[in-house]
Formats: sequence, C-alpha cells, structure tokens
Amino acid sequence: MIITMASGATTKEINQVKEKIKELGYETKIFKGVKKTVIHVIGATDRERITLSVEPLPGVEKLTPILSPYKLGSREFHPENTVISVNGNLIGGDEIVIMAGPCSVESEEIVLKVAKEVKKAGAKILRGGAFKPRTSPYSFQGMGEKGLKILEQAREETGLSIITEVISEVDVPLIAKYADILQIGARNMQNYQLLKTVGRFNKPVLLKRGISATIEEWLMSAEYIQAEGNPDVILCERGIRTFESYTRYTLDISTIPVIKHLSHLPIIVDPSHPAGDGKYVPSLSRAAIAAGADGLLIEVHTDPTHALSDGKQSITPLAFQKLMDDLKNIAKIVGRKI
Amino acid sequence: MIITMASGATTKEINQVKEKIKELGYETKIFKGVKKTVIHVIGATDRERITLSVEPLPGVEKLTPILSPYKLGSREFHPENTVISVNGNLIGGDEIVIMAGPCSVESEEIVLKVAKEVKKAGAKILRGGAFKPRTSPYSFQGMGEKGLKILEQAREETGLSIITEVISEVDVPLIAKYADILQIGARNMQNYQLLKTVGRFNKPVLLKRGISATIEEWLMSAEYIQAEGNPDVILCERGIRTFESYTRYTLDISTIPVIKHLSHLPIIVDPSHPAGDGKYVPSLSRAAIAAGADGLLIEVHTDPTHALSDGKQSITPLAFQKLMDDLKNIAKIVGRKI
Amino acid sequence: MIITMASGATTKEINQVKEKIKELGYETKIFKGVKKTVIHVIGATDRERITLSVEPLPGVEKLTPILSPYKLGSREFHPENTVISVNGNLIGGDEIVIMAGPCSVESEEIVLKVAKEVKKAGAKILRGGAFKPRTSPYSFQGMGEKGLKILEQAREETGLSIITEVISEVDVPLIAKYADILQIGARNMQNYQLLKTVGRFNKPVLLKRGISATIEEWLMSAEYIQAEGNPDVILCERGIRTFESYTRYTLDISTIPVIKHLSHLPIIVDPSHPAGDGKYVPSLSRAAIAAGADGLLIEVHTDPTHALSDGKQSITPLAFQKLMDDLKNIAKIVGRKI
Amino acid sequence: MIITMASGATTKEINQVKEKIKELGYETKIFKGVKKTVIHVIGATDRERITLSVEPLPGVEKLTPILSPYKLGSREFHPENTVISVNGNLIGGDEIVIMAGPCSVESEEIVLKVAKEVKKAGAKILRGGAFKPRTSPYSFQGMGEKGLKILEQAREETGLSIITEVISEVDVPLIAKYADILQIGARNMQNYQLLKTVGRFNKPVLLKRGISATIEEWLMSAEYIQAEGNPDVILCERGIRTFESYTRYTLDISTIPVIKHLSHLPIIVDPSHPAGDGKYVPSLSRAAIAAGADGLLIEVHTDPTHALSDGKQSITPLAFQKLMDDLKNIAKIVGRKI
Repeated sequence: MIITMASGATTKEINQVKEKIKELGYETKIFKGVKKTVIHVIGATDRERITLSVEPLPGVEKLTPILSPYKLGSREFHPENTVISVNGNLIGGDEIVIMAGPCSVESEEIVLKVAKEVKKAGAKILRGGAFKPRTSPYSFQGMGEKGLKILEQAREETGLSIITEVISEVDVPLIAKYADILQIGARNMQNYQLLKTVGRFNKPVLLKRGISATIEEWLMSAEYIQAEGNPDVILCERGIRTFESYTRYTLDISTIPVIKHLSHLPIIVDPSHPAGDGKYVPSLSRAAIAAGADGLLIEVHTDPTHALSDGKQSITPLAFQKLMDDLKNIAKIVGRKI
Repeated sequence: MIITMASGATTKEINQVKEKIKELGYETKIFKGVKKTVIHVIGATDRERITLSVEPLPGVEKLTPILSPYKLGSREFHPENTVISVNGNLIGGDEIVIMAGPCSVESEEIVLKVAKEVKKAGAKILRGGAFKPRTSPYSFQGMGEKGLKILEQAREETGLSIITEVISEVDVPLIAKYADILQIGARNMQNYQLLKTVGRFNKPVLLKRGISATIEEWLMSAEYIQAEGNPDVILCERGIRTFESYTRYTLDISTIPVIKHLSHLPIIVDPSHPAGDGKYVPSLSRAAIAAGADGLLIEVHTDPTHALSDGKQSITPLAFQKLMDDLKNIAKIVGRKI
Repeated sequence: MIITMASGATTKEINQVKEKIKELGYETKIFKGVKKTVIHVIGATDRERITLSVEPLPGVEKLTPILSPYKLGSREFHPENTVISVNGNLIGGDEIVIMAGPCSVESEEIVLKVAKEVKKAGAKILRGGAFKPRTSPYSFQGMGEKGLKILEQAREETGLSIITEVISEVDVPLIAKYADILQIGARNMQNYQLLKTVGRFNKPVLLKRGISATIEEWLMSAEYIQAEGNPDVILCERGIRTFESYTRYTLDISTIPVIKHLSHLPIIVDPSHPAGDGKYVPSLSRAAIAAGADGLLIEVHTDPTHALSDGKQSITPLAFQKLMDDLKNIAKIVGRKI
Repeated sequence: MIITMASGATTKEINQVKEKIKELGYETKIFKGVKKTVIHVIGATDRERITLSVEPLPGVEKLTPILSPYKLGSREFHPENTVISVNGNLIGGDEIVIMAGPCSVESEEIVLKVAKEVKKAGAKILRGGAFKPRTSPYSFQGMGEKGLKILEQAREETGLSIITEVISEVDVPLIAKYADILQIGARNMQNYQLLKTVGRFNKPVLLKRGISATIEEWLMSAEYIQAEGNPDVILCERGIRTFESYTRYTLDISTIPVIKHLSHLPIIVDPSHPAGDGKYVPSLSRAAIAAGADGLLIEVHTDPTHALSDGKQSITPLAFQKLMDDLKNIAKIVGRKI
C-alpha cells in the first residue's frame, strides 16, 4: 500500500499518517520527492482497515494498493511514463535517445574522434567506461579518473552528455562529479550496497539487467535505488545467458513490451553485448526500436579490431550513421522520433 | 565437399565422379535436383586431392568446400537466398509473407470466419492444426482429417494457402493431400524419421526450432529434410526455453540475422508462442520484421478466451488488422513489402 | 479423479460407472490392468458430486482425487513404488539395477566382449543402440535389425537382458521382438505418436528426459504411455541443457528425490551423457546412487577412442568394475543392494 | 607463464627476473607467499624465449606454462590439493568439513541452540548471516554487528568456527574481526572490488558460484582474490539457474569432479539453496559427498517455519543428526572421514 500525500502536506500531517500506520501494526518508509511525499506501508495485508483509518486524515491525497513486490517502480503506483531529463534530453518521452561510444575509454584521441562522429549521426549521450569490470584480473581494468577527465573533455567539445559505469560504492562520489548518468553493469545488478549508494545521489542511473535476472528481480533492484530517494532509473536490457552460444548473450526482446506493461520506468536496449559481433548489431537495433524501446546503448569504435575491450561487437562510425537513418524511419512508425 | 554437376551432365558422368570419390576412400550422397545434380562427399578431409582428381572429369561444374556441418543449407554452398513458391506466393524473396489463423481447427464456422478476416488484412497463408501435439494425453488432440477438410474448404473460399502440422510419419501422405506447407513443430524438430519422411514429399516444410535447439542443431535438422531431396525448408523461430518465466518462451530475435548469415533458407517468426500473451504479440511482430524476418506465423482467433488451445496468446482479427498496417510500413524501411 | 474398480468387477458394473459419469457431464478413460480396472474421469472439477453419485455403485472400490496433471504416474494415485520385472530383475525395488554397454552396436565382437565384461562386474542389463538418432544425417545411423540380432546373441551368451532404443513408431513391432526394455531417447520424449505406440506393447519402457523438459512435462509424457495401458515406465534422468558448456549437459541430480516424492515410477540415471567425458562418470554415478536412484545406464566400451559414437564419454570395462565396487558399498548405506 | 622463485630468493634476484621480463615486453605480477615468491608473466605468448632468458637467472626454481585463463587456481600451477586450516580444521584434506547453522542470525537464543545441536552432530563450522543480501529492499536485511557479536558468543560457547557473509567492501574490516571465514554470496561473485578487498585480508574466503557463472568465470573470480595475495579460497557450488523451477536452483553436481580436475582449490556444496525445500536436502547432501565434495554448507534451524529467511529450505537439528550418520558412512567409501 502506497499513500501519496497532497502537495503542500505538512510535516505534522505526514507524521500523523505515520503514527496511525504504526498503531495498525505496520512499518512505513517515507519518500520525499520534489513535489510530493509518498509513504510506503510495508507488508500491508489488511487493506480495508488501513484505508478506513488513513484516507480521512488531513493531507492525504490517495491510497494505492500495489500487488507486485516492486512498489515505486510499478505501473499501478505511477500510471504515466517516467520521463528523465539529462541536460535537456528527455528519456522515456516521445523522443528515442541514442547513447553511443567506445566500450572503454582508451585514449583522448579515440574518444574525441568517436564522440564527434556519433554526435554528427544523432547520438545524444556518449558512453565509455573508465572503471571496467573484467572477468580476468589480468585484463585492462580501465583508465580510472584519467578516463573520466577525457569524457569530461568530450562533453565540453561536443555537448554530448556522459554515461559511465560505477563498479564500487566507494567511487560513486568521484564518478558522480563527472558523469551525467551513472551506469550499473550486469554483474552488479544485485550489488545492493552499490544500488543504495547511487540511490542517494541526484543523478539518473542506468541499471543493466543481470545475465540471469528475472524481470521481477530486475525491478526489485531498481526499487533499491528508488527507495533511497532517487526516482530516475533507466532500465537497460543487454541480453541474458542461455544455452545458445552462437551469439554472446540472448537479447530478450520481449522485455520491452513487458516492462512497459509492468512499470513506468524507461527501458533501453544494448544490442552490442548480446550480438557479440558488430554485424548483428544493426538488425537487433532496428528490432529494439520497432518493439518500443526508449533508446539504445551502442558500442561504436573507430578501429574495432584494435579496441582494448569488446572490439568484435563494436560497429564503425560509418555503420552507425547508416543505422541511424533506419532508426529514424522506424521511430516514426511507432509514433516516436529520434 | 560438394560437387555440383553441370546442367545436362549425363548419368555416366555422374557415376564416373562417384567412382573416383570411392577410389579416394570417401562415401557420396547424390541429390538430383530439377536442373542440376549435386554430389556430397561425406567427411571429406583431403580437399586438395579430391579437387585434383575430380575437377578435370567431364560434366563437373564446380567443387565447393563446406566447413559447417550442415552442407546443403549453408550459405557457402548456395550464396543466393532460397525463394520458395507456395501457390505463387514467394517466401524468402522481396515480399514478406504473413501466415495467420487459429491455433487448432475447432469448427468450420470459426476457421472460415478467421480465414476471411486475415485474408482481408493481408495474410497469404492460413494456419490451423488438425493433429495437435499436446503435453497432456487428456487434452484436445485435434479434429484429424475432418479438420483438414475444413482447411481445404477455407482455401477454396478465400484463396489462402494452407499450413498445418504433421506429428507422425504415418500421417504425412494424408496431410500432404490437403496442405500447401507441412509444419514440423518444436517437439518434433529432432524426430528424424518424420524429417526424412517429409523430405521425400514435394511440399515446402516449415521447421520450427526446438525449445532448446542450438542454431546448428536446427540447421542439421533442416539438412535431414534437404538430404532426402526436398530443398524447400522454411525455418521458424518460435522462442527458446530459458529461466525467464514471465513470458512463455524467450523469442531469440538474434536468430534472424544469424540464420541470414549462415544459411540461404528463409526464416520466419512465430511471435505468439514466445509471448504467451496476445498483448505482447504486436511488439514482437514489429521487431521480427525490423530485424529482417521473411514472414510471420501468428495465432488469430475471433474469440480468444474460448479457444480450445492457446487462446491467451491469440490476437483478435481487429488487432491483427491494426498490426498489419504497422508491418507494411516497417517492411518498406527494410527494403521489403507486404 | 480416478475410480478404482474392485478386482472382479464385471463389465456391466464398469459400464454403469461410465454411464453415470457421462450423465454428470464428464468424459472417461478406462484402463484395464491385469488385476483391476481403473476409470479416469477427465477434467473432473465437481468432486463432491461425483463422489456422491459414484461411490455407492456396485463394483466401485475407491475414488482418488488427483491434483497433479499427471494422474496414473502420481504418488497420490499409487502410493507404493512401482516395481518392474525384467526377466526376473526387479527395477524400483530394493535392488539397484545397473545397465551398461556400448553407445551403439558396432560389431558382434565388441558387443559380446563388452557384454561379458559388464556381466562379470555385476550389470544385469545390456544397452546398445541399433537404430541411432544422430544430429547429422551424415553420421552413422546404426546397424538396424542386424544390430538387434547381435544383441539377441549377447543375451543368449550372457543371460543379460537387452535395452535398445526405438526412434520410429513404425519400427516398434520389430524392435519389441528382440528387446526386453524399449528405450525412448531424449529427442523423442514428446514424440507422442511414438509414446502411444510403445504404450500398446507389453514391454517395459525406459523414458529419457528431454534436454529441456520440466519434471512435469516428463511425467506427462510417461502418462501418454501409461494411458495406453502400459504401466511399466522407467524414468531416466540424462542431464539437461544449460548455459554451462564445460560438461556436455548438466546432470539434474535433484530429480531423483523430486521424482520419488511426486511419482511411484522408478528413476534411473544416465551419467555418461551429462558428463560427456568418461573421467567424470564414476563421480556422477556414485552421486546418483547416494541420492537414491534405482539404477544406472552407463556407456562402457572396450576401446572408447575408436567407438563410432560417444566414445569420449564411455568408460572401459576396468573402470566399470572398479566403479561397481564403490556402488555396492554406497547401495548398502542407502538401504539397497546391487 | 608462472615463475616460481626458490625459497630464500633475494629481492635483488626477484627484481632481476622482473627486469628481464620487462625487457622481453611483458608485464609481471608478483605474489609474495609465506615461503616462496611467485612471478606471473601476464599474457606471455612467446614461451620459449622467456624460458631461455629467465631459467638461467639466479634464484629461479621453475617455470610453469599455464594454458588456462586462471593461473594461480589452476591444477597445472599447483598440482597438490590446497588444504586450508580454519582454527585447526583442515578443509581440502582427508577430512570432510560440515558447516551448518541458520540462514540469518535472528536472535541469540536460536543461534546458540542451533550451534549446540550442530556441534553435537559433528559440524565444525557455524554459518549465519548478519548482513543479508535480499532481493527486496523491504525484507529483513540482517542484524549487522549485533549479529556478529552473537556469532562470536556462539563460537566461545561451542568452539565452532564462524563463517558469515560480506556484502560490502566497506564492511570487510569489521566482519573480519569476528569471522573465521568470509563468505562471498552468489550475487557478488563478480563484484570485483569486494573480491579484491577480501583478497587483502588474511582470512579464508568461501566463494559461492554465481547463479549463471560458468566454471571458468568462477575460477577467474577466485583468481581476483588469489592475485591480491590471499591463497585460501574455498569454492562453493550452490546451484545454477535453469528453466526447471520445481527446485529453487539446479544443483550442478558435476562441478565437483570438474573443479577437482581443473583446480587445486577445495570445493564444498550448499545443498539447501538448490533444493529450496528441506525434504530434498539429505538426498543432495549424500550425493555431494559421494561425488567427492570437501564439505557441505547446510541451513539448519530449530523452527524452520518461523525463520526470518529461507525457512522452507532449512532442516531441523534432528534431520541434520540423522543425515550426518549417513554422510560419515559415505565419506569412508570415498576414502575420507567426517
């Protein structure tokens, strides 16, 4: 059960509701948003009794019973789409937002070159990892803060916003100084301390689905971020692990309409990781937009064969440009624009 | 290694090649097509020696080494797309072919009604099962030949071609008398006796992917059909089984570009089984066409809630009509037409 | 709902029950066993009404409501373990029965040699495929009836019973003349025509689990055999397909206690296919017996590296002998014997 | 390539090797163990040249080429089993070590009661979570340090060693003050910052397999811990996620012989999480020991139906006692003891 307080409800009114719930034997969790305060009654089973007691209290706008285990992320609680502004680019609205760039930040030269190319083709956000989670401790682990500075420079030169990955709760303050969107990778989808930490920052968070996370577990992880006060979560489908090993992962395209049905959060697709091969990326990208995705996160590299990570699945700026033309046309058919 | 004989090669020339291969220690398999004869050298490892011995023989057009375990289905062997004619409708060419209809044939009335509706909306082929493979022996098992006669009547009244499932090698001759396309379901993808049997008939075969078949195993099953002399195999992706149970199966959208890369056979998508819920079918259908599929196989029912099987995943004729409009537009963007 | 008729119930009494059920609006399925007749009321929802109407009828022994979708195989219907006699060897009772032999019948010499070795070590049943389902149409497809004759000869010389695979409904009569147990492979677990066919023969059937079959689907496939009148189904866990590719399949060891809980049918384990490598077979075999399996089906070959199929996963007679010693000891600890 | 320096090799000798490798164009990673120093040449491809240059240098004992991506954990590098001492209990040696206790620390009373019971039955290590990773932010998250103090008290009263989970790199110093073994849960198997952190502590680490981690990825995560200088990693198989949902996870029993083949690290099994139901735990436990596991981690609770987490999969002290009797007997058969 979620209790939405009217805008302008006073602290006294909020406390009164809280006390009443306590009397009824339930715990509460308070979310203070910019406009309204929301009170989550945890584990509420006796809905009728709560409604009778709480609805008449001053300052209470409405009570919403939520059947799903995720509350703040559910469509029942928040029927309209959440639209997130990133330096003026709106994610989850009419516009489809394309994020593109190299897998990892390797050098100033490459990042700037790629940034300019993807900007020209219509991308709005530059991706690039400075702190890389790698399966092997002996692989390149990213440039760290030096990489963040390169991304910052690219933002200055191109006007693109920046998305980059956080892999440690300790590094969040540092990365939040540079990034416009904080990315949580698939491996950390259930690193709850990291989720809680980014939930306390005032930055949109892109939450990738774990390689074997169910849709419900994914929304529960988003809930960890939202429950700390940060409502701006972008979900990112990036393929799940199945028996099929011809592709690197299996893009679960169905998550797009399913998430749209269950949740109000924006959902975008990373076609590069499931493909595992650049030649399959255009096909998957077109499919994602046709299915209703709010955006894409694509690996683009000027020299894929020499990339320090994930080169095989990157596409060239030229292929990206060509793909964008198709995507613009498909966007129109599904009532969107790029 | 595949040896293609020139059109007009004589039996004597063919036998000479066969003898030479035998001398070299390999077995052969002969495929006599309408225009040309093809000789498959099984397990050929010593390519250079075979080439030197066979290339100069009279009637030999070319030798193609095939690295993949599937030979006749591989793009290496047959670089152009296979285009299959079903009563004049071409599958695998520029046109995208939509197959639609009820899961099972339940009554003359429903089948005719659905047939007229899907025809009107632009479908070219009517689907409907008369022999149903059901998980439970106590579920409705299909109307049998009576159902086939209803399909025949629908073809007469609408001009739609008919696709229907075969579940037993024994029934193939009966079903082939009525059907324009023989469908092999996911459960029978590795029922090799059934594959061999349909390989001996002169009817296109739609081969659904098994719920846990790798792409390679799927192409190997197609090879069973082709190796018996029937080149007209249509592959159908219908979702694979994964841990995610929110949808009935996981539509593996990536198979579309992958099959296009590996094979010359047409590939279509069944969006109804992976969705498991009609409300997700339009999104998956749009994605499939955007990804490059050659067609769709969609469950349409006038009264989904009372269907004897798979009602939940069927869409109404109205929803189908609306979907077709979107698909026609997306087809154009990918250089095709519906 | 299952109605068990008293032994000695007359045809008139049986028909009277059938008629009464029909009046109540349900269909029935009659199973005539050697001692008793059982009537299955299909889709019965109104249990109370059926009980009131049917229980008083003459010849009715008891009514059993079955909640699971599989009826005849459920532990609710048949609380005691089913024990199946194969030439005097009891499967599903106190004794653990070991089946061993080559993957496929390749030659008289090898089969007889292996048969003598496994007999000496304590195996009771000889395995060997004469009709082989192979992923590739170009692989060795088995010796056919000639292979069956070799198995027959091995039975005569060693006294071992014979288990061999059926892959086509058409071949069942032929194979049933030679085999003591008919084996249905994983690929055919949902080849319902084949299941129905073996259900009409008076031979025990070993039903392997499909590579992606749920436990419920597996029991439903067993139900197809039982519903045709053959109660003697032995379930065989042989590994499921997962993302892990280090082993050939993933042995789902948990099925042993789960099947024992849900069903009265015997369950045995094939450790060779999931292992995919002979060196892991002893460990998996010990685990299966410790977990409570009723038997094992192991690939043994005198010369694994030259086997025509599955050589890598076979073990030598020597390794088999050594393993049997361990298994005999573990059997005692779980209250069984080999 | 791994270079093992002789015991007593001087810093000068070590540096000389390092310099030589640098000249050859490779990076090195130095591991200073208690007795010997080991130098890992990262990405070494030109083995012959390295051997010729480095083998003659003073202080060099031997060079070991390692083909697997995990180096320090591979059986090639360290042929003998690693045996880890936890307060005198040896894990990975002849003895099989049983760890048991409640899922989470809920109260002093329950923990002490369970601790005494499992101690009596033969357990050597007490499990219990004070910091709990929970799918929902609204579920009980553990007692924190208060829980650690209860575990400490249980150790004092029973002499059992303590294993407890770490879920945040920030909390490692605190937990390391109380715990004898640090547990990394499945969700954090690829939380590399956490792995690096526990790698810098002088405490054995139990590393659970991620729900969809391949065996190779699991060993790579162990490598992260070892590469920081902590050689004492215990692997724990706890079930993988598959399509089968009858059990909570699928226990991958094959990992036991596979890990024993690939690595020298001890491997234990958690039968409670894959079972998801206490009634299947004894069967899986017996299987694990018969397969060759070095120990078990079992959830035991005095009142499973009222446990705050994972009650359904816990077994009672009585069931645990009975199970231990069987395990002791099976241990003997596989040449071990409990």
